[in-house]
Amino acid sequence: MSVERPIVRPHLARLPGYAPVVPLSERAARAGLAPQACFKLDANENPYGMLDGVRDALQQAMQEAGFGAVYPDPNQTELRTALASYTGLEPAMILAGAGADELLDLTLRAVLAPGSVIITCTPSFGMYPFLADLNQLELIDVPRGEGFALRPDALLQTVQSVRERDVDSVVILTSPNNPTGDLVPRDLLTTLLDRGATVMLDEAYIEFAGLEASAQDLLSAHPRLIIMRTFSKWAGIAGLRLGYMLANAGLIADLAKVKQPYNVNQAAEIAGIAAINVADEIALQIDAIRNTRSLLFDGLQSIDGLDALPSAANFILVRVDPAIGSGRELHDRLASVGVFVRTYSDPLLAGSLRISVPRHDQVDELLERISGVLESAHST
Amino acid sequence: MSVERPIVRPHLARLPGYAPVVPLSERAARAGLAPQACFKLDANENPYGMLDGVRDALQQAMQEAGFGAVYPDPNQTELRTALASYTGLEPAMILAGAGADELLDLTLRAVLAPGSVIITCTPSFGMYPFLADLNQLELIDVPRGEGFALRPDALLQTVQSVRERDVDSVVILTSPNNPTGDLVPRDLLTTLLDRGATVMLDEAYIEFAGLEASAQDLLSAHPRLIIMRTFSKWAGIAGLRLGYMLANAGLIADLAKVKQPYNVNQAAEIAGIAAINVADEIALQIDAIRNTRSLLFDGLQSIDGLDALPSAANFILVRVDPAIGSGRELHDRLASVGVFVRTYSDPLLAGSLRISVPRHDQVDELLERISGVLESAHST
Repeated sequence: MSVERPIVRPHLARLPGYAPVVPLSERAARAGLAPQACFKLDANENPYGMLDGVRDALQQAMQEAGFGAVYPDPNQTELRTALASYTGLEPAMILAGAGADELLDLTLRAVLAPGSVIITCTPSFGMYPFLADLNQLELIDVPRGEGFALRPDALLQTVQSVRERDVDSVVILTSPNNPTGDLVPRDLLTTLLDRGATVMLDEAYIEFAGLEASAQDLLSAHPRLIIMRTFSKWAGIAGLRLGYMLANAGLIADLAKVKQPYNVNQAAEIAGIAAINVADEIALQIDAIRNTRSLLFDGLQSIDGLDALPSAANFILVRVDPAIGSGRELHDRLASVGVFVRTYSDPLLAGSLRISVPRHDQVDELLERISGVLESAHST
Repeated sequence: MSVERPIVRPHLARLPGYAPVVPLSERAARAGLAPQACFKLDANENPYGMLDGVRDALQQAMQEAGFGAVYPDPNQTELRTALASYTGLEPAMILAGAGADELLDLTLRAVLAPGSVIITCTPSFGMYPFLADLNQLELIDVPRGEGFALRPDALLQTVQSVRERDVDSVVILTSPNNPTGDLVPRDLLTTLLDRGATVMLDEAYIEFAGLEASAQDLLSAHPRLIIMRTFSKWAGIAGLRLGYMLANAGLIADLAKVKQPYNVNQAAEIAGIAAINVADEIALQIDAIRNTRSLLFDGLQSIDGLDALPSAANFILVRVDPAIGSGRELHDRLASVGVFVRTYSDPLLAGSLRISVPRHDQVDELLERISGVLESAHST
């Protein structure tokens, strides 16, 4: 007889866990500052927050007697109809989830048996290796090269060699990529698809590049293309958890049966529909973020010891001159003055920081704090 | 080269899918009635809805500038602290999820390798066989006997025979059980645990039996006991998705690493904490539901051809005299007069219906509609 606690399966017990963002209140407390005196630039949220039109829709829904009390619609009928109008695709090609995170996991779990392969191009989103571990998938990485550029030949070669092993695989690409900010070249994508690869294209940040940069027009001709999107970045509702995927209708129908029936909560559903209704107004926020991105880029480039990467997203990756210190060291100094950016344990990114684009009215102060920290570092 | 769409794994492709509840608006439209003229008694939600104190907390949070825009706390620090005060257990023994559904899946996925066994006692919650299929688990059922009573000897024998096969297993019990309404006898639970079984005890409806009927006091001595709870039933926030589990701190720590980092949305977090703060007021709703349950039980028993089961939950299972028709037939007749109850495809329940307890002011009208339908059935 055994009375030990149930243990988790070996591949999960050794999981390091996804390194999530530390809440602002905790980070501010550690810095000894009030949260409103700090810049939360570590999770690529919309710095303008939820648009009033979205908030109003939530407030109004909440006044109804039944709000929140009954289960959400498992078929997501209204939400998928709204997403159809937003994307121009049929509802049958759309499925919503509790953030794109849920849909990334759902799709990998459903399509790939343990021992199958995902191919990534690091540095990229930290969730992919986490999901590989979770689903017992072999992760084959084709690291980016000089200047963090994708290496198309190496990627195509890897896809070919995995195919020769006769094992199922999914290529995960991110466009714009997190944290490097670059778009996936269209010809690389079509070449992969033409060669029969299944490509999961994560377009979490596509609104900041412009929807015209999306690959969604390839969906009709390419049933092996799967596109992931989120409301967490452009729509300012990261806290409510809403993402969606675009794919072949047959795959969507199968995944709809596999998902948790009540996966999208009612607040997310209402906020998502409202965000689509006021998408024109949110587009003005996005324009402001793109303008601020230019100012931030120029400002960072003008600071000695920093080298910013051009970005199509709402963040900028900055490489730090080793003479100044590691990315982690600069991160810690910035945190001490209430500037919270993203740092990485990945050795490829040990010398880099990712900074989310702040509100337009914050960019001067942000650049001053960064300069200040670097000057005091130089003078010590 | 293959250009077919990605296909889901065979065990998922044949999944029938969980049969979720049809939204009220759809059901009312089919009946040609206004939703407010209908009784939604098919999903065991709290008929009084969200308490004003919970709604107020949400409304207030929503007025803050940052509401919804940033990711929720992956460590659920505030929420787990509130749950600790609600349950009297340490936060380290508590993990929250997007409904108990997420946590049921997470736990089975993490603890049981494909080919392992879950043991159920049908009729019970339809999610368990769905999760067995999803996780490639063998489902061994020990059906309930006469009057839908658990069969302890058969269950213990099954546990023993699975143990002899040297395969990992989890026994899933539900207390009160959905849809039969009975509590799991305490001595059966302790016998199972004493014999080394891992027991997942689903206490989704425990508040309607009284928290003193919970098995949570067994947790400290029994590291193989896992308890699942939800806010969907007692707290009136099914739409926001909040559940939690109570278990050995080591297991909780492991599962916290495996879960989706941002699994609990901000609205659920706020509403959950608020519900705990006003739990005394919600207790008055629960008292009202228990009183109404008695009235409903007596009323149903007084109707010819119906036989109600005593229930410790917020619903009553009713067996329908075959002379009247099948459960499905009576369900359809009730739907035509705007009474939406739960029917089942499970042959064990073909002659039964589950009716959620309505508001106190609705019970007379509900009983009249049911009687009316049965009288017109008799007279045709």
